Amino acid sequence: MSSFSPRRAQSETGDPLLLTPGPLTTSKTVKQAMVHDWGSRDAAFLKINKDVLTRLPEIIHGEGSYVTVPMQGSGTFAVEAMLTSLVPADGKVLVLINGAYGHRAKRILDIAHRETAIYETPEDTPPDPDRVNAILKGDPAITHVFVVHCETTSGVRNPVEAVADVVAQNGRRLLIDAMSAFGALPLDSRTTSFDAVAASSNKCIEGVPGLGFVLVKREVIAGAKGNATSLVLDLHDQWQGFEKTGQFRFTPPIHVIVAFHQALEEFWAEGGVAGRGGRYAENCRILVEGMQDLGFSTLLPPDLQAPIIVTFHMPKDLAFDFQRFYDGLSERGFLIYPGKLTVADSFRIGCIGRLYPKDMHAALAAVREVLVDLGVSTPLRSAA
Amino acid sequence: MSSFSPRRAQSETGDPLLLTPGPLTTSKTVKQAMVHDWGSRDAAFLKINKDVLTRLPEIIHGEGSYVTVPMQGSGTFAVEAMLTSLVPADGKVLVLINGAYGHRAKRILDIAHRETAIYETPEDTPPDPDRVNAILKGDPAITHVFVVHCETTSGVRNPVEAVADVVAQNGRRLLIDAMSAFGALPLDSRTTSFDAVAASSNKCIEGVPGLGFVLVKREVIAGAKGNATSLVLDLHDQWQGFEKTGQFRFTPPIHVIVAFHQALEEFWAEGGVAGRGGRYAENCRILVEGMQDLGFSTLLPPDLQAPIIVTFHMPKDLAFDFQRFYDGLSERGFLIYPGKLTVADSFRIGCIGRLYPKDMHAALAAVREVLVDLGVSTPLRSAA
Repeated sequence: MSSFSPRRAQSETGDPLLLTPGPLTTSKTVKQAMVHDWGSRDAAFLKINKDVLTRLPEIIHGEGSYVTVPMQGSGTFAVEAMLTSLVPADGKVLVLINGAYGHRAKRILDIAHRETAIYETPEDTPPDPDRVNAILKGDPAITHVFVVHCETTSGVRNPVEAVADVVAQNGRRLLIDAMSAFGALPLDSRTTSFDAVAASSNKCIEGVPGLGFVLVKREVIAGAKGNATSLVLDLHDQWQGFEKTGQFRFTPPIHVIVAFHQALEEFWAEGGVAGRGGRYAENCRILVEGMQDLGFSTLLPPDLQAPIIVTFHMPKDLAFDFQRFYDGLSERGFLIYPGKLTVADSFRIGCIGRLYPKDMHAALAAVREVLVDLGVSTPLRSAA
Repeated sequence: MSSFSPRRAQSETGDPLLLTPGPLTTSKTVKQAMVHDWGSRDAAFLKINKDVLTRLPEIIHGEGSYVTVPMQGSGTFAVEAMLTSLVPADGKVLVLINGAYGHRAKRILDIAHRETAIYETPEDTPPDPDRVNAILKGDPAITHVFVVHCETTSGVRNPVEAVADVVAQNGRRLLIDAMSAFGALPLDSRTTSFDAVAASSNKCIEGVPGLGFVLVKREVIAGAKGNATSLVLDLHDQWQGFEKTGQFRFTPPIHVIVAFHQALEEFWAEGGVAGRGGRYAENCRILVEGMQDLGFSTLLPPDLQAPIIVTFHMPKDLAFDFQRFYDGLSERGFLIYPGKLTVADSFRIGCIGRLYPKDMHAALAAVREVLVDLGVSTPLRSAA
């Protein structure tokens, strides 16, 4: 324990800055929206909720053709609801895996007794659309393909558009887990064909955690009756509830939804996907260049790196101790993320949430300070 | 629309008072606890979460023998997780039904392909423990019994203790949905035998919605591996996550949990079940006596009425229009609840949440005013 107290960065509400894949630093106004109570069946709340459901499809240019079905819980609750409600008992899903979230989808499908095929690539390698094409041509039993837009395990951006084209050409259906990408990476339903996309309140829309949602083509959700393997995760039944009464079937996380409504207002005010994604891209550029100046190297080349979270190789310098590095940054008000890779020893730094270029510069200054404290000389020797 | 604006009651944060079965009016301090951000894997949040998990079993005097397994979503998510994770594929559940929540449990079990037997009584009639005894003796295949502590459909208090005795005498296992009763009606695991009890953040503990939880006997959850029919609702896997890492498997509703932690502090400060239940009992007494003075009659006799929510018969006076009655109370800052009964035309008024005797007196004054506005003379003629 050092007796020196370094200067500590903090958010508008005095909290550490979360350089993670989410839950994220959110604006003060988003959180302050929660300092009220509403009845779950009262008109004031129902109007807020309806606004959220109506405007979310605009993010994928799907207004009119897609409906929003929210799901209490988290993003994974929405992914399980999407997979088990939209894939019928006799369906078969080709799961594209290059990280933890692909594996998770496979596990969900196994538990639900849905047949699967797997196409797995290393964590730093996106799926090859030509290979997807060949697999689909070779297995006519496959009805659906599942892909993760940005695998936060590594931060890799998967080629969702090219995969969608191949899936559509083969007459199959695409389900997307866009969790950490939704609202920051463009996804245009007018040019990219997919049945549904799942995401959550606490990623790039910058709300607080507690709600997932699935945007589904209207005719797809209408045809999904009876597929579900659970009452609470039945996406069709949830949708029917809104169609019939405008209400959730079961108690919604009211405060989380009201905060999400405020977050959406702020998202549109920033210019939607272009504005939000633009700020994150700038955050990412500053982070990567600054870390490279210090001698760190990224797992991914620039063309595969999503501007969401960046994986850095662990330095080889023996003076570098990750726990002390993490603690040093934490003391300075920056929370980073451990690595989750099997392909390399690594750590991760996120660039999403209510973070601006000045915060990324401050984070880099803190990294520099902590390296000095650890006695690590910079620039680092080759780390990869 | 009247041009006269009546005096409007409001909570500490300027909101209408929620005389509902939940989500409820909560304290300002509970909501203000949410105006911060935390990382979901950061020590500060994990300590708050651990405090919540550790202290909840004290409410049933189950510290040491019961563990808390929280479940993202809502109370129904916790009930589905409890039923599908604790009843094995070859189990059979006797479902005691006298309202919507009993029916919901039956539906959950049907979807999960768990065998059931039903003992249904009218909404104003609790199950008879002797009849439960006879059913269990007549059907040795029944492994579990499911009972709702307070059925908020009517507000009836079911005889959980007597049912528990009969279930234990027959060597079967009891699962309790205590949703709207937990923390207000005593439930003592030292004298009442049950495997698990499910409840939620937004009822009598007076937190905000977004989290359910199940208190389960340690040996029961340890033996529940592989039962679940869902990944996210797998109570055993969720418990294992906490045992191994102290963390949620999937993103938790952080702000909801921090608010729940604050709500628990305020619950203990009020004197736990005795203090909280005592205030609600006083609220209920004032409400029932005041409404009876106006000529309203309750569905339930006093010995069956839980101090949670009260069902009143709809008055027969032709001048009484429920929508105008509801709107008049709403204009005055009180949100009540429509009826849900099949046995009688009715409406409901709750007495839980951050409501005090003065609020119940104010609600009664508002009822009186609205009746005058509607041209309904009081006391009402016999309503039942």
